[in-house]
Amino acid sequence: MTFDPKRTIAELKELRSLTADDNGAQRVAWTDTWLNARNWFESKLAELPVEHHYDAAGNGWATLRGESEKALIIGSHLDSVPNGGWLDGALGVLTGLEILRRFAAEYNGRPPVTVRVVDWADEEGARFGRSLLGSSAFAGTDSIAVDRGRTDKEGIRLEAALRRCGVDIDRFPESQAEQKNAAAYLELHIEQGPVLERLGLPLAVVMGTKGVERHSITFSGQEAHSGSTPMGDRRDALAPLAKLALEIYSIAGKHKDAVCTIGSVKTFPGIVTAVVGRCEATLDQRDLNAEALAQMYREAKEASEDFAEQHGCSVEWSRIWNIEPVPFHPQLRQFCDEAIFEIAGNGIKLPSGPLHDAAEVSRVGIPTVMMFVQSLYGISHNKIEDTKEDHLEMAIRAMDVLARKAAKWISEQPR
Amino acid sequence: MTFDPKRTIAELKELRSLTADDNGAQRVAWTDTWLNARNWFESKLAELPVEHHYDAAGNGWATLRGESEKALIIGSHLDSVPNGGWLDGALGVLTGLEILRRFAAEYNGRPPVTVRVVDWADEEGARFGRSLLGSSAFAGTDSIAVDRGRTDKEGIRLEAALRRCGVDIDRFPESQAEQKNAAAYLELHIEQGPVLERLGLPLAVVMGTKGVERHSITFSGQEAHSGSTPMGDRRDALAPLAKLALEIYSIAGKHKDAVCTIGSVKTFPGIVTAVVGRCEATLDQRDLNAEALAQMYREAKEASEDFAEQHGCSVEWSRIWNIEPVPFHPQLRQFCDEAIFEIAGNGIKLPSGPLHDAAEVSRVGIPTVMMFVQSLYGISHNKIEDTKEDHLEMAIRAMDVLARKAAKWISEQPR
Repeated sequence: MTFDPKRTIAELKELRSLTADDNGAQRVAWTDTWLNARNWFESKLAELPVEHHYDAAGNGWATLRGESEKALIIGSHLDSVPNGGWLDGALGVLTGLEILRRFAAEYNGRPPVTVRVVDWADEEGARFGRSLLGSSAFAGTDSIAVDRGRTDKEGIRLEAALRRCGVDIDRFPESQAEQKNAAAYLELHIEQGPVLERLGLPLAVVMGTKGVERHSITFSGQEAHSGSTPMGDRRDALAPLAKLALEIYSIAGKHKDAVCTIGSVKTFPGIVTAVVGRCEATLDQRDLNAEALAQMYREAKEASEDFAEQHGCSVEWSRIWNIEPVPFHPQLRQFCDEAIFEIAGNGIKLPSGPLHDAAEVSRVGIPTVMMFVQSLYGISHNKIEDTKEDHLEMAIRAMDVLARKAAKWISEQPR
Repeated sequence: MTFDPKRTIAELKELRSLTADDNGAQRVAWTDTWLNARNWFESKLAELPVEHHYDAAGNGWATLRGESEKALIIGSHLDSVPNGGWLDGALGVLTGLEILRRFAAEYNGRPPVTVRVVDWADEEGARFGRSLLGSSAFAGTDSIAVDRGRTDKEGIRLEAALRRCGVDIDRFPESQAEQKNAAAYLELHIEQGPVLERLGLPLAVVMGTKGVERHSITFSGQEAHSGSTPMGDRRDALAPLAKLALEIYSIAGKHKDAVCTIGSVKTFPGIVTAVVGRCEATLDQRDLNAEALAQMYREAKEASEDFAEQHGCSVEWSRIWNIEPVPFHPQLRQFCDEAIFEIAGNGIKLPSGPLHDAAEVSRVGIPTVMMFVQSLYGISHNKIEDTKEDHLEMAIRAMDVLARKAAKWISEQPR
């Protein structure tokens, strides 16, 4: 089979027609629609001289054995959020498939290094709130004890939903066996942001995934009657939150590419006739530089304490989750940059704000890099998620160039 | 019976023991507990030479016929919010009862003017969201068409709940007949704010009830991924709301006693990983001066539009409700001031931020005034709502002095 990026685009559309409805893609992990997507993907592999299996965490592995056991891995995830788009995740997996076909054809089924395509299980965490589920099991950073008790909106337990798909949460650690011989990991993904579109560029080298500090912040003041409480007597818990919601723009503004987001605000009692007595908010801070991230967290915390004091309130922070920045492998970033230049001319280097399975792979020490392709309108996780088809073609070609370079690099490494 | 404010306090405690649980008063209108409170109140009237009936809107009227048909009315409401306090409403009704006893005893059952005590139905609107229900029917400002369709949390219709209590919503207008011969209306209420406590004063003349402009405000920006959307590319709908939440302090600060409150903020999608695409808030603005109120509304609206534009958002305002300021009667305010001076020495003059049944009565043109007694901690609508007992006694005594003055004033009016 000759390498054909247009086939990948056609397959992406085929997958969409199988797994989307009027509201978008419905490939939510551990649902029938997702299982259908995986079966469809397996059927595509049937024509190839590859072995396929699911590991103990439900990650799907297609392996084309090479002269060397050292493996080049290309992957992403077939699962989507509810009402999602046609590209997020699926693009990376189906690009991997096309590159696998090319290696198989070019080397008559036996390339110099082993080439694997991975479809990570439940990257989105859309149903149970735990993202990167499969890749974290692979990386040994799983959180089985916590995850076991998770339930979906209907009260179905994560553990039960996985068992229905043949996955036993207690056996998650066994999926670490897939790390064996992994020599490089490549992932193509849509940017999910507006930067490439604004710059008029199709492709970017991803420098790494940003570290994240994610906190819940609660300001406590005094609920009071909106009609009878003079402005000067108020301990309005909304006021310090309002100051913080503006201050995060200054805090992030000190660092290139840093972001801070207050995504959720809840007011209590939350009625028109009462001064807010308690205000709960979430703050998500991200940067590729660990020191900058730590500084942003410190500054936001100190600012919130000052603002609370100014309004006679108290403030409490509680960490929801955090992850260190994960810079990708210098040599692979270099190859990625060369591949983009070869196919598209100019490219840029961007950190990834969203997390990706690549971060989990990289954390284990497996050389990793990602490539971004432009997203239209900067929108993802939505049925209007889209990318121009010529940009998709360029991305698939550039990934193939990157895969060649990576395979050569692996084959030249000492045994 | 000799006039005895301590009896009133004892009766307030008796009512509390009958109608409160561990979470506070549960005299929510149209419930059995409220009906029990009303039956208990009727039993107190049985010893007196009064006629008692419920009007077409469920307001309870106890009437002591005097030499003149012209009536001095004293009242408030027995209903409470869920988990409410022991004084809000009940204090005014039971003070009316004690003054009724005093008139009956002093004039041997036949005072110079008719004296009535009214227990307004459903002042709080706690169950169906429509406050001042009974007094607005009395005033002819009811909103039957809208109210008919209201339902409580269990889906029970307002109309059905009233019918169960013997009230037919279509007959509301008949309660306007109670306006006949009404010559003055007096209401004692707890302040529900912190001003008297801060000044160390027990009592205040209420100058009137503030006008209210109540709006729902929606800022619309663009939902976006918190990790991949640079700060400069965001159309964060929370940012203009944050600016408005601070700006209202400046807007209200230009007018003595004016208040502006953002009591509810809702963020959409409201998740930690997304920039806020839509932010819905409520704004409640109050002042005793109609021009100042109009200016505050205009300034908040203009500010919101500026703030929205600064962040690439749009904003829409939708009026939830409004009411004009209701200044009380100058002569009765004067009597109230004198009565407070006689009993407590210094008093002050305050507008009422919260609405009261007195506002509905005053709107019809019936001379009206209210008196406030200090609230501890400025808290009401809560089981910790409280007032010092010596302040309660002073309030009941001052109301009696005010009632004497008002009755004399009425009896001296030309027929």
